[in-house]
Amino acid sequence: MAPLRERSDDPVLPDPPPGPLHVARARASFPWKELALFWEGEDTLRFKKAIFSALENDPLFAHPRGSRLSVEKYQELNFLRCKRVFEYDFLPVGDMPGSLPRVLALIECLGMYDWSLAVKFFLHVLTFGSAIYSSGSERHLKYLPKIFSLEIFGCFALTEVSHGSNTKGIRTTAHYDPSTQEFIIHSPDFEAAKFWVGNMGKTATHAVVFAQLYTPGGQCHGLHPFLVQIRDPKTLLPMPGVMVGDIGKKLGQNGLDNGFAMFHKVRIPRQDLLNRSGDVTPEGAYVTHVKDVGQRFSESLGSLSSGRVAIVGMSVVNLKLAVSIAVRFSATRRQFGPTDKEEVPVLQYPMQQWRLLPYLAAAYALDHFFKSLFLDLGELQQGLLGKDQSVRQAELEREIHALSSAGKPLASWTAQRGIQECREACGGHGYLAMNRLGDLRDDNDPNCTYEGDNSVLLRQTSSYLLGLRARRGPGGARIESPLKTVDFLDGYADILDRRFEGSSPEDLLDSSVPLAAYEWLVCYLLRESHQKLSQEKRSGKSDFEAINNCQLKDDAVALVDVIAPPDFILDSPIGRADGELYKNLWTAVLQENKVLERASWWAEFAVNKPVVGRLKPKL
Amino acid sequence: MAPLRERSDDPVLPDPPPGPLHVARARASFPWKELALFWEGEDTLRFKKAIFSALENDPLFAHPRGSRLSVEKYQELNFLRCKRVFEYDFLPVGDMPGSLPRVLALIECLGMYDWSLAVKFFLHVLTFGSAIYSSGSERHLKYLPKIFSLEIFGCFALTEVSHGSNTKGIRTTAHYDPSTQEFIIHSPDFEAAKFWVGNMGKTATHAVVFAQLYTPGGQCHGLHPFLVQIRDPKTLLPMPGVMVGDIGKKLGQNGLDNGFAMFHKVRIPRQDLLNRSGDVTPEGAYVTHVKDVGQRFSESLGSLSSGRVAIVGMSVVNLKLAVSIAVRFSATRRQFGPTDKEEVPVLQYPMQQWRLLPYLAAAYALDHFFKSLFLDLGELQQGLLGKDQSVRQAELEREIHALSSAGKPLASWTAQRGIQECREACGGHGYLAMNRLGDLRDDNDPNCTYEGDNSVLLRQTSSYLLGLRARRGPGGARIESPLKTVDFLDGYADILDRRFEGSSPEDLLDSSVPLAAYEWLVCYLLRESHQKLSQEKRSGKSDFEAINNCQLKDDAVALVDVIAPPDFILDSPIGRADGELYKNLWTAVLQENKVLERASWWAEFAVNKPVVGRLKPKL
Repeated sequence: MAPLRERSDDPVLPDPPPGPLHVARARASFPWKELALFWEGEDTLRFKKAIFSALENDPLFAHPRGSRLSVEKYQELNFLRCKRVFEYDFLPVGDMPGSLPRVLALIECLGMYDWSLAVKFFLHVLTFGSAIYSSGSERHLKYLPKIFSLEIFGCFALTEVSHGSNTKGIRTTAHYDPSTQEFIIHSPDFEAAKFWVGNMGKTATHAVVFAQLYTPGGQCHGLHPFLVQIRDPKTLLPMPGVMVGDIGKKLGQNGLDNGFAMFHKVRIPRQDLLNRSGDVTPEGAYVTHVKDVGQRFSESLGSLSSGRVAIVGMSVVNLKLAVSIAVRFSATRRQFGPTDKEEVPVLQYPMQQWRLLPYLAAAYALDHFFKSLFLDLGELQQGLLGKDQSVRQAELEREIHALSSAGKPLASWTAQRGIQECREACGGHGYLAMNRLGDLRDDNDPNCTYEGDNSVLLRQTSSYLLGLRARRGPGGARIESPLKTVDFLDGYADILDRRFEGSSPEDLLDSSVPLAAYEWLVCYLLRESHQKLSQEKRSGKSDFEAINNCQLKDDAVALVDVIAPPDFILDSPIGRADGELYKNLWTAVLQENKVLERASWWAEFAVNKPVVGRLKPKL
Repeated sequence: MAPLRERSDDPVLPDPPPGPLHVARARASFPWKELALFWEGEDTLRFKKAIFSALENDPLFAHPRGSRLSVEKYQELNFLRCKRVFEYDFLPVGDMPGSLPRVLALIECLGMYDWSLAVKFFLHVLTFGSAIYSSGSERHLKYLPKIFSLEIFGCFALTEVSHGSNTKGIRTTAHYDPSTQEFIIHSPDFEAAKFWVGNMGKTATHAVVFAQLYTPGGQCHGLHPFLVQIRDPKTLLPMPGVMVGDIGKKLGQNGLDNGFAMFHKVRIPRQDLLNRSGDVTPEGAYVTHVKDVGQRFSESLGSLSSGRVAIVGMSVVNLKLAVSIAVRFSATRRQFGPTDKEEVPVLQYPMQQWRLLPYLAAAYALDHFFKSLFLDLGELQQGLLGKDQSVRQAELEREIHALSSAGKPLASWTAQRGIQECREACGGHGYLAMNRLGDLRDDNDPNCTYEGDNSVLLRQTSSYLLGLRARRGPGGARIESPLKTVDFLDGYADILDRRFEGSSPEDLLDSSVPLAAYEWLVCYLLRESHQKLSQEKRSGKSDFEAINNCQLKDDAVALVDVIAPPDFILDSPIGRADGELYKNLWTAVLQENKVLERASWWAEFAVNKPVVGRLKPKL
């Protein structure tokens, strides 16, 4: 490892300030700066330092953050901070594809500061930007410079009020009118309103809207993305036919303006269909190079995996912050001791170690997993943009889809439980908002839900593994995947025969033991799942019949009627006794404060444009 | 069961409003109104209905609640609502001891509306009130009418910044000065400041302050409770020598003003020592009827169990609300289905049932556990007040201590996990603040910490069980406890020999099977714990030696240094790199907004007194 090149006036890793933690730090069996250098690399360390220093020295970032601000103030500050990030131009957008470790570091740095900021920035630049770049064609490239100069502000509108996980059920329509060469974007009712869309609440001027495409004659060609202007960039007022507003306070990430939109016969030019997977001729004929509707939808969405991989990273960052707080607290908080006079740091108690150290280990393990998965994703995306049609590319897409579908639940749940454990391990002090464990938990919480509900997602990985097992079968091909994460399944039968035969503590501490145990467990679960599935298929039951055979649930609503208070007291639109789920939700959303009103600070977008790069730090 | 006497104009259980939930409700195998009557009893149902109706019809309670208000506004509204509860006088304080089911119902109703309100009310009336009543003597009775008329407002100040669980480490002092017949209450430094005290932040005029009592000559007699005036009831401004303020925003229950106080040689009359367990003569001699310092402390605290039992109830209420919301949502939210056109309610999916129904069952089981424990606690408290010195009373106290020490972690953790599961099971809609699952989780969260950290508390129950086992031993007395919860341990040896021999599904569904399994598990864990403990004792290791033998932890702080960002970004006073835990915390507390300032609505306490009973509903 190259030694750290330090300049005494600008050390890349300054010594921590002196204080009580010094004692604990001095007891470590290794020099932490060397591990930091090994873990991050010098370039990344310098890059992160430059970002952190810029934020620390800028008064705009010095205000309190998170739940201690009103939502209105928080959204305003968050927008101003987002604009300022453009002025810092830490990593020019054009450089991003070539410097993935710096992209990683930028996400981590902004996220460590505040996910509301990071998500607002990346939703606009990466999610909205790459939806246009990768789902559109040359005629859409003109929008890209407008994104990077903040002439327009973007969002990505897929989810609707009544459909999230089941994207096929999405009901916004886009009818093509050849007489004017326009698409008519329309929301049939309020259950089909776009909902949850980040940046849509107060700031977005443009949305990538997913809608069912209809050609004249009434044929539906499935979901397609359209670029729809929703607000006037000069005034931030809604465009005619667009009802757009903020969905209201969430449990976390309240600096981000999540919004809803309903379209009343909004006409957009034919060219604003993002036409990578399918197009409509001026006369109204549908043309596509992808015959399968499902594949067309996947292609128009781009890689479904990138959002999930990003969430793995977000979860890891949250876990790193939480264990940092809880371990430092525990090393300095003293309580009880061998004598009444002498108390010991709570970190010395086996119980406190048992609570925290597994999460410290998980933070390291998941950090490494995320970084390697992110680089693999970069390779996948290069292939997608290059229209790589190779078998390896298809296998890589499947493997990364399976890894991200399992990795996102693993990371987000581990972080959620870890942060809660850290909060509890810090006792009352962990419950004080200023110590940030609440904000971390609340900002991490949606990671369990968006980009695919965790519980639903896990099935994707099961399907992948069951598929591999089926292909292997007797006399089948070897199991070999591009990233080699499932190659061990080739020894499926042998692994199932393995038995642990260690007896001494040394046998148990051998790091190959847990690895072998996990391999056995995966094979075992795979065999059990396969057998259960085969049995059900043999009995001729469909998934949906199985669902209706279970009775314990029929009593659930009545059991709840016994313990639920009146609606006024229960005070939850989705929990009201009549079950008018969406009516109640909409009533509540529209009764919130300033839902449809333009933000008071609209001129900060409309007039005061950032000078991109004005504050760029020297790296 | 007596039939429900219904008057058509005022049914005790009105029909739910018509709507989509009607279908699910109609499928139940039992009439829910009959179960409600059986579960609650008619008197309680009518009493709850009167409370709920009063709140619903009073505009003061119609404002939004919880996290959607600013802390300042929330605290003001919460105080006004608390005052209004006195005007409703649902259950006159004098009637409380004789009508425990109504006390239960009142706690549940106010808590279901908002724990900030319920906790504020009960901390003043029950915690502060009964501390004076049961820890003081006749000379303190004069304060009680002032509590019930809101002439004074009270809080209970035990915990300090640096000591919570370890109450023996509390460092506030009370030196007796015979020359003026006063105690001098003093906080030696800011680590000894009282902290977390509910009602102390903005409203309390008086505090029961626990301090180490010193008599002239310097002898310390241990912790004693003193009644200390901290604010002037006419102005709500602090008394001389008292620095009192609000600790700042917490993760939940922000309608409650948790506060801190430091005392600079504050003099109080000798008579304001709450002298049930020990007193000081005018000349300065310490007199007590309880020789053991530990027992004296327990006695001066009153029953330690009551707070824990209350927390069991709080947790159950939160779980009941959360499952009510999630089950109703799941019965009406449709997603995916056997065909593209037809979608089924998500409650029909086995996965959703698997996530929610165990928590629905837990809500019922814990509700019953709480109610029976609360009535047992009532019996215990009658005995305490009647100075019952019987063996049964002592056994009952030990048993309820053990039950509440295990029941509080069980209920609060089950609720915490259950609410989080409900929030996730409602997907994005569960993450929307208006649907209340966030407030429920945040308001429930401190239940895991206060009145004894859950992890620390569980040891109390272990000690009780290990003690029973030791007493039983070979040839020992039968194990019989007043509430019979541990009588099964008498068959300890036989139970350990039990093996499950069922084979059919019917065998597994027999409800005696899980009960027998739990009995076996308790006995097994008891045997293992006993053996481990004996082994350690034989090897001569003390608890505190064992603590220092573990090395995995010495690296924890350095490992955290590698992943933690600079302090500015980590933004957590307890997680700063220097480890100056309390200095950093105090700096942050004092930098918050309006910490030491009197509430803008102080006149609502000082001048506008409630007319108790003015709005009393007819029951």
